[in-house]
Amino acid sequence: MTTSSVPAVPADLALRRLRETSPLVQCITNAVVTGFTANVLLAVGAAPAMVDIPTEAGAFATAAGGLLVNLGTPTAEQRQAAREATAATDRWVLDPVAVGSLPVRTPLAHELLAARPAIVRGNASEIIALAGLGGGGRGVDSLATPEEALDAAIHLAREHGAVVAVSGEVDLITDGRDIVRVGGGDRLLTLVTGGGCSLGATMAGFLAVCDPLSAAVAASTVHAVAAEQAAAICAGPGSFAVTFLDRLAAVTPHDLTDRADRSVVAS
Amino acid sequence: MTTSSVPAVPADLALRRLRETSPLVQCITNAVVTGFTANVLLAVGAAPAMVDIPTEAGAFATAAGGLLVNLGTPTAEQRQAAREATAATDRWVLDPVAVGSLPVRTPLAHELLAARPAIVRGNASEIIALAGLGGGGRGVDSLATPEEALDAAIHLAREHGAVVAVSGEVDLITDGRDIVRVGGGDRLLTLVTGGGCSLGATMAGFLAVCDPLSAAVAASTVHAVAAEQAAAICAGPGSFAVTFLDRLAAVTPHDLTDRADRSVVAS
Amino acid sequence: MTTSSVPAVPADLALRRLRETSPLVQCITNAVVTGFTANVLLAVGAAPAMVDIPTEAGAFATAAGGLLVNLGTPTAEQRQAAREATAATDRWVLDPVAVGSLPVRTPLAHELLAARPAIVRGNASEIIALAGLGGGGRGVDSLATPEEALDAAIHLAREHGAVVAVSGEVDLITDGRDIVRVGGGDRLLTLVTGGGCSLGATMAGFLAVCDPLSAAVAASTVHAVAAEQAAAICAGPGSFAVTFLDRLAAVTPHDLTDRADRSVVAS
Repeated sequence: MTTSSVPAVPADLALRRLRETSPLVQCITNAVVTGFTANVLLAVGAAPAMVDIPTEAGAFATAAGGLLVNLGTPTAEQRQAAREATAATDRWVLDPVAVGSLPVRTPLAHELLAARPAIVRGNASEIIALAGLGGGGRGVDSLATPEEALDAAIHLAREHGAVVAVSGEVDLITDGRDIVRVGGGDRLLTLVTGGGCSLGATMAGFLAVCDPLSAAVAASTVHAVAAEQAAAICAGPGSFAVTFLDRLAAVTPHDLTDRADRSVVAS
Repeated sequence: MTTSSVPAVPADLALRRLRETSPLVQCITNAVVTGFTANVLLAVGAAPAMVDIPTEAGAFATAAGGLLVNLGTPTAEQRQAAREATAATDRWVLDPVAVGSLPVRTPLAHELLAARPAIVRGNASEIIALAGLGGGGRGVDSLATPEEALDAAIHLAREHGAVVAVSGEVDLITDGRDIVRVGGGDRLLTLVTGGGCSLGATMAGFLAVCDPLSAAVAASTVHAVAAEQAAAICAGPGSFAVTFLDRLAAVTPHDLTDRADRSVVAS
Repeated sequence: MTTSSVPAVPADLALRRLRETSPLVQCITNAVVTGFTANVLLAVGAAPAMVDIPTEAGAFATAAGGLLVNLGTPTAEQRQAAREATAATDRWVLDPVAVGSLPVRTPLAHELLAARPAIVRGNASEIIALAGLGGGGRGVDSLATPEEALDAAIHLAREHGAVVAVSGEVDLITDGRDIVRVGGGDRLLTLVTGGGCSLGATMAGFLAVCDPLSAAVAASTVHAVAAEQAAAICAGPGSFAVTFLDRLAAVTPHDLTDRADRSVVAS
């Protein structure tokens, strides 16, 4: 624990702001999770817009409150759209899905990283691979824990001036100086596609209303609380996904207070 | 109220016909809602077919009972497919998602409008923008109410010989002469992605069994009744979407009688 | 019934193996069912990866435990990806959605068939069309029953050295010599998009842990049991899809024993 105020905007206040402003969140994301991601954003209180074709993507990004670029199924049009959109805004999240050895997304992820995302979100294997400290995971699965990716996350954060969020049983979020851990999610999240991808989208939504570290922590906290509540009453992964959306819409700012444990790395 | 028979085919009869014939409904639609849209069509009683690549789209449209062209995420292949398919059939619905200032879909929407859709369905901002009477909405959100889009809808309908359906708390549907209003949906529809998009698909399904005005009214009525029933028993947006599909499949023709209020504009 | 051991690996043992190894299943599949398919694979116990762009698809296929190529919405990039991936592995399933007269997918299906899939899965109309014995179905719907496609299935299996699985009320699976029938699914599966498509994906998952005939039978059996259990407690197609995922995750190897009826064709 630390006495410094980390994050600057606590999750409950961030959620109030997001619901008051309902920011437009542009998503350039993979074909598997588009529908679920849009529903997550709507449930949280944001306004999704999947504007992901060349020419439009850049124009839209200037107006959007936040932008997600997720490399899950990066078609040629999406790759071009991602380049345009990330050039047009600073409020964006990079989700380097399955980065490591795959020959299209891996160089693209590094190119986009150089375009300075506000937040990089991935699982431990992805963060380790992106930092150049390992070979990547197994498809979209992580073969490491967030704590094993701590050095990689700090390295990436300092090198690129980004907040890095490593998702896992306990999420680990760092700006290279402070580290915040958010626990309380549920294993069922790993049995539903789009849990991590939609978390990146929610982070992009919070970028519209607070700084990157606060945004990443608020999103992780909201997802963890909703997942915990949903897991308590569902019958399996199908009903978990449905109940997760119900709970995301019902989560109150009060539910979010004091969910994150904080520590500070020596800088 | 009017003594004229508006629409010509009442919603309950239209639903009977749709379920008896299970028309093939071709959808060229956005990546966010493809799955939900297909499930809506199956639940209502139609047979969805997302044939949306060049060369195939035109060939398929000649055999389909109805066609939806939705501009939510218009890739280059979908744009070409839309041109082919709309040239091959008269029974089609245009959904000009987020038309207004976005530089690809806006000229495409106008080009497709000139190809004479049977029905144009959108939210108020989209209809106003398409009629050239305003700048568009905020992404896929409407900043106006259907009643505020009434003049635009009538103008569009007369100019292009189309039925225009403006979705909102109370749907407004006009062929430029008659106006039909359908109420009774639920705010939860705005918290689930694909509510409006799938309504356009259902309208395309009804085009296989009745005239455009009757088709638009029948689709709006079926969706409104199912939404109302679902909202009464769900726990949030996730379970609303699931229950909406359950209720669409369970709606009876009897549930639909006398749901639409009718008025007639001086022509 | 026969005394020969058909399939070589019974479904319960196949399921144990799949859950122990959680094989990576690469899916090049249609835009409508990507999310549902991924959720089905996760629920069964496999690890989905929708790597479907050129250059990456071939590289990934060498590492994947199984591959699905589904022709539902075959974009140009997916067509190229399918060619690459099928050249890189023998453990793959071809799902020739709506093959028959559509001018892009029909020649592609024949080209891919020549690349020797381990399993071909389709509805009766698709299998008949692929065997050159009929003109195809109506979009994705079948106009024939699996038994009517028996000759076509045996012909295809012998000609191409593949296991052929014909989906319907009772699934029919043959390697050209043995025939296995799996019953017990539910009509609700036809009211939900992706039932057949995700079955192909599950077959691809089982290819990682057993021979093609055993894989096809195990997948059909798991889906049939989960569908039967889900149908018993759901309220319509929306809740059926959700409950189907819940039950897929909960199905035990014990639930699967002795579900398939076996017969042997004279070779």
